[in-house]
Amino acid sequence: MPQYTPPVRDVRFVLEHVVGLENYANHPDFQNATPDVVDAVLDEGGKFVAEVLFPLNASGDQEGCTRHDDGSVTTPKGFKEAYDAFVESGWGTLSAPEEFGGQAMPHVVSTAFQEFMISSNMAFAMYPGLSHGAIAALLAKGSDEQKAKYVPNMVSGKWGGTMNLTEPQCGTDLGLIRTRAEPQADGSYAITGTKIFISSGEHDLTENIIHLVLAKTPGAPESSKGISLFVVPKFLVNDDGSLGDRNPVTCGSIEHKMGIHANSTCVMNYDGAIGWLVGEEMKGLAAMFIMMNAARLGVGLQGLGVAEVAYQNAVQYAHDRRQGRALTGAKEPNEKADTLFVHPDVRRMLMEAKALTEGLRALCLWGALQVDLEHAGATEEERQLASDLIGLLTPVIKGYGTDKGYDVATNAQQVYGGHGYIAEWGMEQYVRDARIAMIYEGTNGVQAMDLVGRKLAQNGGRAVQAFFKVVADDVAAGKADPATADFATRLEKANGELQAATMWFMQNGMQNPDNVGAGAHSYMHIMGIVGLGVMWLRMATAANKLKAAGEGDAAFLDAKLMTARYFAERIMPEAGALRRKIEAGAEALMAIPPEMFVAA
Amino acid sequence: MPQYTPPVRDVRFVLEHVVGLENYANHPDFQNATPDVVDAVLDEGGKFVAEVLFPLNASGDQEGCTRHDDGSVTTPKGFKEAYDAFVESGWGTLSAPEEFGGQAMPHVVSTAFQEFMISSNMAFAMYPGLSHGAIAALLAKGSDEQKAKYVPNMVSGKWGGTMNLTEPQCGTDLGLIRTRAEPQADGSYAITGTKIFISSGEHDLTENIIHLVLAKTPGAPESSKGISLFVVPKFLVNDDGSLGDRNPVTCGSIEHKMGIHANSTCVMNYDGAIGWLVGEEMKGLAAMFIMMNAARLGVGLQGLGVAEVAYQNAVQYAHDRRQGRALTGAKEPNEKADTLFVHPDVRRMLMEAKALTEGLRALCLWGALQVDLEHAGATEEERQLASDLIGLLTPVIKGYGTDKGYDVATNAQQVYGGHGYIAEWGMEQYVRDARIAMIYEGTNGVQAMDLVGRKLAQNGGRAVQAFFKVVADDVAAGKADPATADFATRLEKANGELQAATMWFMQNGMQNPDNVGAGAHSYMHIMGIVGLGVMWLRMATAANKLKAAGEGDAAFLDAKLMTARYFAERIMPEAGALRRKIEAGAEALMAIPPEMFVAA
Repeated sequence: MPQYTPPVRDVRFVLEHVVGLENYANHPDFQNATPDVVDAVLDEGGKFVAEVLFPLNASGDQEGCTRHDDGSVTTPKGFKEAYDAFVESGWGTLSAPEEFGGQAMPHVVSTAFQEFMISSNMAFAMYPGLSHGAIAALLAKGSDEQKAKYVPNMVSGKWGGTMNLTEPQCGTDLGLIRTRAEPQADGSYAITGTKIFISSGEHDLTENIIHLVLAKTPGAPESSKGISLFVVPKFLVNDDGSLGDRNPVTCGSIEHKMGIHANSTCVMNYDGAIGWLVGEEMKGLAAMFIMMNAARLGVGLQGLGVAEVAYQNAVQYAHDRRQGRALTGAKEPNEKADTLFVHPDVRRMLMEAKALTEGLRALCLWGALQVDLEHAGATEEERQLASDLIGLLTPVIKGYGTDKGYDVATNAQQVYGGHGYIAEWGMEQYVRDARIAMIYEGTNGVQAMDLVGRKLAQNGGRAVQAFFKVVADDVAAGKADPATADFATRLEKANGELQAATMWFMQNGMQNPDNVGAGAHSYMHIMGIVGLGVMWLRMATAANKLKAAGEGDAAFLDAKLMTARYFAERIMPEAGALRRKIEAGAEALMAIPPEMFVAA
Repeated sequence: MPQYTPPVRDVRFVLEHVVGLENYANHPDFQNATPDVVDAVLDEGGKFVAEVLFPLNASGDQEGCTRHDDGSVTTPKGFKEAYDAFVESGWGTLSAPEEFGGQAMPHVVSTAFQEFMISSNMAFAMYPGLSHGAIAALLAKGSDEQKAKYVPNMVSGKWGGTMNLTEPQCGTDLGLIRTRAEPQADGSYAITGTKIFISSGEHDLTENIIHLVLAKTPGAPESSKGISLFVVPKFLVNDDGSLGDRNPVTCGSIEHKMGIHANSTCVMNYDGAIGWLVGEEMKGLAAMFIMMNAARLGVGLQGLGVAEVAYQNAVQYAHDRRQGRALTGAKEPNEKADTLFVHPDVRRMLMEAKALTEGLRALCLWGALQVDLEHAGATEEERQLASDLIGLLTPVIKGYGTDKGYDVATNAQQVYGGHGYIAEWGMEQYVRDARIAMIYEGTNGVQAMDLVGRKLAQNGGRAVQAFFKVVADDVAAGKADPATADFATRLEKANGELQAATMWFMQNGMQNPDNVGAGAHSYMHIMGIVGLGVMWLRMATAANKLKAAGEGDAAFLDAKLMTARYFAERIMPEAGALRRKIEAGAEALMAIPPEMFVAA
């Protein structure tokens, strides 16, 4: 019953007016992203996922994955065929390097496609999604031999990839890892241990699965400094590229989860499985962060993707459902009731969703541009700026993006009233699916600590100062134009709250680091508000310019301007309350002894 | 794996120091609530639900209800036996009148028990819960004959009761009802139509089910003014009280829902079923509101009940799970990691839950006292004040209480990290169960409109003025005591935001009613914050007094005081942002034409 249309027009607007993709037309790393190719990716890629993946979303949720007694796992009906079509079409190869069979498109383009794929079928999108993380780690840290052996088939989608971090006793605290890696005479390692929550850990979509596994070598210290990264294929790969023996790495069970039922979340048992070191011994954490940072941006995109499809359906329901009359008098007196659109509180939920999804889309695509510029920037300065900005904003995109994605999905469900709670309408699945994005790849509390505990202080605060400069420049330009002056002034105020909170951390964090931890989550949200504020200012500026030039669809541009106003009036005010929470400090949080928490 | 301990000590604290139950000791309507009886209800009633109902919560969710081909419905394994034990124990009869077999306890006592029952098993609690709504309507509007015929067996729990309002084409807008009631020669009516979302509509727990059904008599106007209420028993009841023919009212299907799987949510088909008018023809809406108001308070209590059990488990997990180290240095260096309690962001989620659940508990019990005083007040003035206050606060308890109940459940799940997403840990069920409470008995948007569109303006604003006087009196007393002066000053500020928002509605609602609708949800939340603020001020005042007198458990009282401070520092600041949203008005919400909502 749900429906989905890729928001191609909105992506184009962002690529053109926020990302400024054409500015990079002559850049070698962007040369494959010619306008007609980008159009084809958006139009044809969007069509593919909407036609092939979206119809499997509800049925995949209902059926889930099945583990058989031999440890094999079957994905839901239709997934294998859809995956084959996905591989055949090459949509999974967009941003991979050409030398490994990829299309060498910039991340900003593949990110746009990824959003469509997530909206169509988040659980499905996770199969190639995990492969991308594993590819990134191998490309960054693997030997030439490892790259040659594994990456081409992973890029093509013939093989899958996974990330094996979590164990029963350790999630965030990877220093507690117990999985052991015993060196063998031939230079390989025998990996033994249990990993849990392994997304796409075992399935029937690919002929091989390349596991990247964190483990400890003998004598390694009992901290995250003792971790090494290993590549452990499900089937060993012979020198001629053919598949060899089955490695003793097996799926012990699949988890029964709240959502993303169609993705197999596995307990993986390593029983002396043969693996090879990726990069240096005991440098696994750094390699892991390469997978992790890409994955975190991908999870932020999940917040957006699920929010978008939930929002689209809520809009349609508000069109279709008639209930009650407008407060200002019947809008359609010949009908028995007006549509839900007449009710301000329904509008509030839809406008909130519109302001957040379009804002997050811009931020995700702008963030993807920074990922590109981190490597492709023309100067060292440009590369460093991009690296600083995306490092700072990765936890914000992940944490704020998925908190808001869940809120939007919940509100979209709310628009349906009682029908929103019924499975057949599809809305409750979006809420269940959106929920995991706040948890995995580092809970949003961990993101907040990464932001305030690591990213803020790094290099003497260089990244946050760079961010403040971006905001200040945009605010100055926005204030100079009467059409955006009000918005820019409000953004300046929200940014002032962020700066004040930053200052408060500097003044109160030394004396008691808990003061920083206590405000971390609120701080992440203020930065999310300011980040989206910058995006909305850029979108409003572009809309005004186009309107003045008599270009573009006036109704589309007017909607952009009104949504920017909604963002300024209804979302930005939260920044002040969040700052007040931060400035309350840690005392009321930390004072009560643990045993007094339950009043029973 | 989850656990539950009824928060008896906290309820006692509220009954003693917020409700002031002993002040009513000599009142006839409270005479059955002697201290030892109240103790027995809390201790033994709490024990009963924790031991009998709680163990069925997860299994009931997993199994769900089953409809058989003959239309009969089986509840999950163990429910029938538990229900029989529940009836046998008499816990369902607490607040029913003695003449119908009840124990004539005040609502404030039965409400405390209800919270425990909901925490133990929300889906189970809905079976007797729906009966209570039906009993309330029959007692208020039924004939003496109807009361005598149905109520005693409903009070005892031998028979169940339901509320049949919603139809496929109408939820909130009951004027659209199509179910017809044709008068028969013998004074009965033949009821024909389809009702949906009927909680406890068909099941195997009771030998009869008494449906209260909204329908339209011939020629009734096509609006909510044309609705009449009918009593339609599953089995007709003979004059001697024995069961007669099966009435043609059957369960057509049960819904597949996001949660509360163990409660049967039925499509009910009325195929000329025999029913009798309850009260006057075309006065069904008023009768319906009697059921509804009781039900709305009950749903608010669901927000609290689910939040409480989710919170308790998150606290336990934070005790048990070790991960990472305190920012201020290892707290337990001999262990491999510290407990989650050392992390400020985990504390934030737990303190937020503690401040909200204990605050909501006080507000629910204080609200239940108003329900009692509405009838039992010594003077007409006291009765009217109670009626005004509970009328005003019913949508707040329902709307704010369930919004926050869902937030607390979501945060409690978040404390578990990845394990929170896995079904066997039980936390995701609490989120799924809590979600419905924001939707049914009038969505929270409908609650907000009831508050600002009806309750604020009624009787020239008498109720809200009475509420402001309650706040002002408490603030004045609180400011006079140095120990509570800071809290009271902050509460005064939050109440100032509420008063300013009220004034803004008065000034801007006439000219455009959408301005009121656009701010309704935010207004409901500010009133929730102020309402909980009053409760926390009373609890803090009591805690200070007890400490000064050297009475009570100092650790318990210190925790109360620190939680009050958390509430003041971390929750009250939201009132200012909410006011700013309200004062933005309706324009940005209503301006975009419906067809421009999707940017695709």
